[in-house]
Amino acid sequence: MALGGNPFLHPEKRPHVEGDFKREEVALANRNSGLPLEALRHDLTPVGLHYLLVHFDIPYVASADAWTVRVGGRVSTPLEVSLAEIARLPQRTLRVTIECAGNGRARLNPRSQSQPWEDGAVGTAEWTGAPLRHLLERAGMAADTIEIAFLGADRGFDVGIEHDYGRSLAPDLAMSDDVLLVHAMNGRPLLPQHGFPLRLIVPGWYGMASVKWLSRIEVLDRPFDGFQQVGTYIYRRQRDDAGVPVTHMRVKSLMVPPGIPDWYTRRRLLEHGPVELRGRAWSGGGVPVANVEVGVDGEWQEATLDPDAGNYAWRGWRFTWDATPGEHELVCRATDAAGQVQPLEAPWDSGGFGNNAVHRVAVTVR
Amino acid sequence: MALGGNPFLHPEKRPHVEGDFKREEVALANRNSGLPLEALRHDLTPVGLHYLLVHFDIPYVASADAWTVRVGGRVSTPLEVSLAEIARLPQRTLRVTIECAGNGRARLNPRSQSQPWEDGAVGTAEWTGAPLRHLLERAGMAADTIEIAFLGADRGFDVGIEHDYGRSLAPDLAMSDDVLLVHAMNGRPLLPQHGFPLRLIVPGWYGMASVKWLSRIEVLDRPFDGFQQVGTYIYRRQRDDAGVPVTHMRVKSLMVPPGIPDWYTRRRLLEHGPVELRGRAWSGGGVPVANVEVGVDGEWQEATLDPDAGNYAWRGWRFTWDATPGEHELVCRATDAAGQVQPLEAPWDSGGFGNNAVHRVAVTVR
Repeated sequence: MALGGNPFLHPEKRPHVEGDFKREEVALANRNSGLPLEALRHDLTPVGLHYLLVHFDIPYVASADAWTVRVGGRVSTPLEVSLAEIARLPQRTLRVTIECAGNGRARLNPRSQSQPWEDGAVGTAEWTGAPLRHLLERAGMAADTIEIAFLGADRGFDVGIEHDYGRSLAPDLAMSDDVLLVHAMNGRPLLPQHGFPLRLIVPGWYGMASVKWLSRIEVLDRPFDGFQQVGTYIYRRQRDDAGVPVTHMRVKSLMVPPGIPDWYTRRRLLEHGPVELRGRAWSGGGVPVANVEVGVDGEWQEATLDPDAGNYAWRGWRFTWDATPGEHELVCRATDAAGQVQPLEAPWDSGGFGNNAVHRVAVTVR
Repeated sequence: MALGGNPFLHPEKRPHVEGDFKREEVALANRNSGLPLEALRHDLTPVGLHYLLVHFDIPYVASADAWTVRVGGRVSTPLEVSLAEIARLPQRTLRVTIECAGNGRARLNPRSQSQPWEDGAVGTAEWTGAPLRHLLERAGMAADTIEIAFLGADRGFDVGIEHDYGRSLAPDLAMSDDVLLVHAMNGRPLLPQHGFPLRLIVPGWYGMASVKWLSRIEVLDRPFDGFQQVGTYIYRRQRDDAGVPVTHMRVKSLMVPPGIPDWYTRRRLLEHGPVELRGRAWSGGGVPVANVEVGVDGEWQEATLDPDAGNYAWRGWRFTWDATPGEHELVCRATDAAGQVQPLEAPWDSGGFGNNAVHRVAVTVR
């Protein structure tokens, strides 16, 4: 439902911008949270440091007791299921790295006006819940099912369109054992900002698929046409391209910036001598990371990978560099088992999605 | 220690700016975290939503077991104390609202180039630890003590000056029962980003006084001259004024923005009819909030206060507004028991400190 003619609700698309940042971009950066890159040291992202992108408001849910999720549409038995019932289904815990599809948007030029992420929109947690398929089997999907839509309790506007946040999945993926109805994160009930009391987790995909505050599941005999599915999260070379939907995470790596920072510029200073560089690498769709290279002033060497932590979790890497006095550029670049490699320059995208360019860190050594 | 001549570490003061925001400001807004204002609904700020300002990097501390805090300088018995010893001292739990001194900086014009907070740099938690005075009594402060300095494990540069984050207190305040050596937040060990494993909490003061990752306490026979004490956190009408140190929080209130938002502009839309407006109000130095007024299109009425939650915690307020279709401006304004009242316009400050202007929320009612 569009709110026609209301100038405050931005019925028009926002133009691309260059250079300095708009007040609205800063307000979003204040509300949403990036991972401070030094927290890449932790295998599991500490509570409160996992990246957070909330499109509308965090719903206020005083207690999980009254929460239900409804399953409707093309099913033989419509359901309304409590949290207690979901907790009685078979449970799984998966370690999953989730990245925001817009991570790196602020490095594009020109850029889409949206949350101006630089590098930090990523995190890793252990998510516990029931495979979605148990609920779908109980409801009985019709043979003509094309998609399953997932709607959250969060509601608002984007480009003039009022909607509940919603996304959809194809039936094959929805019936995978790895797509979970999650009620716990790192062994504790979900925090309000991570979807309390119930959310979807779609491992291997960018974060937009993992609908928070899940309240409705709709089985459809047609593609879902909600705004978050067809109006955004589309790779487009130009604004009016048909484009390609954003799905799996692209291969990527990040580095813990070594040394100590300047408060304002975040420029790094470190002492000369051997320094262990560390970081994380991941890819999407369950494809493992094959290797990570570290480039020092343009010369590449292979990093050592930490033990594998599962199909969906980032992998640690380390590399000892003998730092010499002066100015240097450190770069990390991951390649996955499908042979996909991070590009040296950011792939431009109209909506600012999927920027998996290599991570560059400038340092001064004394 | 200045790093002379290194252009990357900003040895010069940064000029004030107007209008759009610098890339460095956005990078800080991504790293640091503001409270999303809808989370003002919670008496205690949910874990991970408390505001967070980290000057340098969050130190990586794998375990609290080896952590000690040293007490030195003008004492009869220098100490090196473990966490276990601090936990054996008498313990207190205080509910404390902490606001960043720079909250509201982004609303000043021109503004200091720093973390560009709008409204969200505030939060409330229950902090548990030992009153600092027990440690100071054990060490035995000299009669000529002027100040006590507190140094964290976080180190970096600001305006070319390399330093450990450090702040100081006068002996009278340091010996108060309310200044705590804190190891737990909301009943759990501190999170890395909130100072794990040990921090200071100075209730009633802006957040810069509550030193995180506390590792050294120095009793001094002179005023502490660390950068965070004398180089910043000073109210100045002009850049070169001697100025007045930032100490207690100024009286302030915020409102949960009613209705639903637009993703990008955060403009609010709500339905006509009665709506309960809610928010929080606080003041500094243990002074209670006396009243909160709500202004609708310039007409002020008194809000109802929730029960008092202690000398140092924000106080809830609520006000039922009969919303009529159209455009409106909602404002909240608190007055404290000392008669201090929030100004209608932001008090300009060179460093962007202490902006306690009233909170204004523009809404569209349909």
